[in-house]
Amino acid sequence: MAKPSIELTRVTEWVNGQVRAHEDSLAAEEPLEIRIGARSLAVTMRTPGHDEELAAGFLLTEGIIASRTQIAAIQRPDASKGPSCNLVSVELQNCAFDADKLQRNFYATSSCGICGKASIEAVRSRGLRALAGGFVVDPEILCTLPERLRANQQVFGRTGGLHAAALFDVNGELLALREDVGRHNAVDKVVGWALLRDLVPLSEYVLMVSGRGGFEIVQKALGAGIPVVASVSAPSSLAVQLAKELNLTLIGFLRERRFVIYAGQERCVTAPAAELPIVHLPTR
Amino acid sequence: MAKPSIELTRVTEWVNGQVRAHEDSLAAEEPLEIRIGARSLAVTMRTPGHDEELAAGFLLTEGIIASRTQIAAIQRPDASKGPSCNLVSVELQNCAFDADKLQRNFYATSSCGICGKASIEAVRSRGLRALAGGFVVDPEILCTLPERLRANQQVFGRTGGLHAAALFDVNGELLALREDVGRHNAVDKVVGWALLRDLVPLSEYVLMVSGRGGFEIVQKALGAGIPVVASVSAPSSLAVQLAKELNLTLIGFLRERRFVIYAGQERCVTAPAAELPIVHLPTR
Repeated sequence: MAKPSIELTRVTEWVNGQVRAHEDSLAAEEPLEIRIGARSLAVTMRTPGHDEELAAGFLLTEGIIASRTQIAAIQRPDASKGPSCNLVSVELQNCAFDADKLQRNFYATSSCGICGKASIEAVRSRGLRALAGGFVVDPEILCTLPERLRANQQVFGRTGGLHAAALFDVNGELLALREDVGRHNAVDKVVGWALLRDLVPLSEYVLMVSGRGGFEIVQKALGAGIPVVASVSAPSSLAVQLAKELNLTLIGFLRERRFVIYAGQERCVTAPAAELPIVHLPTR
Repeated sequence: MAKPSIELTRVTEWVNGQVRAHEDSLAAEEPLEIRIGARSLAVTMRTPGHDEELAAGFLLTEGIIASRTQIAAIQRPDASKGPSCNLVSVELQNCAFDADKLQRNFYATSSCGICGKASIEAVRSRGLRALAGGFVVDPEILCTLPERLRANQQVFGRTGGLHAAALFDVNGELLALREDVGRHNAVDKVVGWALLRDLVPLSEYVLMVSGRGGFEIVQKALGAGIPVVASVSAPSSLAVQLAKELNLTLIGFLRERRFVIYAGQERCVTAPAAELPIVHLPTR
């Protein structure tokens, strides 16, 4: 059974001081394990759908196979189990596949932010605990952050090609901003900046990132004790799920005088969610 | 010596049928190896700069340390060698660091697109060779691709949170489009689609991606034999370098009736580069 590429979630929207609740669509994000026979080759965080194509393309573009004839079969071992089928197994033929060499290669080069863990369970097994409440940030302050972020992006202005992450205090003052080709690296750099100044845990700060609020960004914020993560774009389904489970406030589409709260609304909106009217919005 | 976050390159710009050459700024992208003592922990593709912060933040957000006091020292072993210092070594203390467990973790979950290789050398060692010439695509056709890409992004319209990759033929006809939270996954899915239909090598097709044209996208395109890669945003320095070395045409900022050619201009512009006037553009 194919898994959906979209998941629905209930969100709280703030628009120019008005607050309302509605259903919103999220891009689904889940781990997929690619096996060669019984051997685990890789786990990638992907949007479910076209998983056999993903496995076939991965084997080709990573240089493990050179032609289609080397694929004897692509199987979904767990397909009968329904929605938990995050596994694809490929049988190869006429392929000098050196599993030990590959294992070394993947180990030696194995760290981008999205790879260090495969699921919320892995994050939990690291001992991350739910964040404490108490910290509150004014929506009017939040609305000032995108412009402050952009105004301080020095490299982006010249190259147009970088992600940014920045730490702000409760008054919207910028503490540190870093730019990087990898969004997760930009987050690690601002967190490292704070760590080396003994500011961790960052329990009274807001992390703002350019682009998308994905699983790895939320996971890294939790690791640094940051209670509020805001981005100018959409979060993924797994990011929202993790934020809800560990009580992190996750904000998306923060642009001018509007934002959407996907988790932990009590840190920036005081009206209880249950009292808000449900509004179904048209497609964005 | 700190490495620059920006690199300059000579590009060819096409604007509404007019062609000119100028210097352009690129976001630098290079691998950084993070070691704990003498042991390699991870390699990440990053923009040079603030590398000690990156290492410190990575250790915290990946759960290897919990406080600054566990960092005894952060060293740059190769700092004396100047520009090749893509290495940071961290000495830990009072830290129950289980290298074997970590190695298993990183291996088990080690594959996103950016991680499968650390450098152009690693790509070369896979046996990728320079692409043949001959394929030519009309700039007027190229200009139609962003709108066709966007018009076919079904999930993005509802979630605003997905990357897209699409294959087009020489006439600008869409063959396949895939969306994913990971840009590299979207590329693997369209390549896998083509592989399973015996269309590989894709020597007469154009790959268009949303967002940035990074190293891993160029590397995956080379693996599938795709001669032209276009994106709506900027490429990184390493993507341009790899494209030049292996004769791939790399196009960025493809929007309406303008694009910038970073490598392999002969596949879409016939005027020899040497005859073009050099124009220094203002900051974007």
